[in-house]
Amino acid sequence: MADIATVVDDYIAVWNEADPVRRQELIARTWADDGTYLDPLMRGEDPEQIGAMVGAAQAQFPGHRFELTAGPDHHNDVVRFTWTLVAVDTGAPAAVGVDFATVAEDGRLRAVTGFLEPAATAA
Amino acid sequence: MADIATVVDDYIAVWNEADPVRRQELIARTWADDGTYLDPLMRGEDPEQIGAMVGAAQAQFPGHRFELTAGPDHHNDVVRFTWTLVAVDTGAPAAVGVDFATVAEDGRLRAVTGFLEPAATAA
Repeated sequence: MADIATVVDDYIAVWNEADPVRRQELIARTWADDGTYLDPLMRGEDPEQIGAMVGAAQAQFPGHRFELTAGPDHHNDVVRFTWTLVAVDTGAPAAVGVDFATVAEDGRLRAVTGFLEPAATAA
Repeated sequence: MADIATVVDDYIAVWNEADPVRRQELIARTWADDGTYLDPLMRGEDPEQIGAMVGAAQAQFPGHRFELTAGPDHHNDVVRFTWTLVAVDTGAPAAVGVDFATVAEDGRLRAVTGFLEPAATAA
């Protein structure tokens, strides 16, 4: 059973991992085999789609990295946490979001759903 | 197809409805027939359990009512919103929570998951 805090740390690491092979390894540690991701802009229906989706997101925000900025807040088989996308050089936030996920029996994430905070929140 | 803003308004009304019969009618409008509720303190696996659960919650907070304080924020088949439990006479907040839900094809809520904000948030 993976510890939820470790899984969420690995989840953030997925979004920051530029190497596709290492990213896919992190995805396998983070998501259940039938895991999914869905937010207002992107979706991934399996580990390969999730990996490609994260790569595309990274290409849109060069020089930025994701940081865990609240949580994880976990009860029963659900968890939520807040992330901030920041510029590596200045630390300026470019986006803030809240992710909600169901947790599989082995502790990995199953269905991850992301919401974006209004832009003013990130200013 | 029920409008999501109306469904969420009805959802808040469920939590404020003291009459068990009217509450159950609101629950039927709000939740899909296989709808559920889960938070750190309570769960309801069907409409009857949800109704009894809400009645028990009301009994714990006499003189209070729920208000929608952020959202609904809706994309794809998911929605999130923030509620505040306030004292009717003073408006003082007693609790703040974020609810996340999946939305059934007819627009009603299916699986509602609640999270409670730290107490300091409500102060």
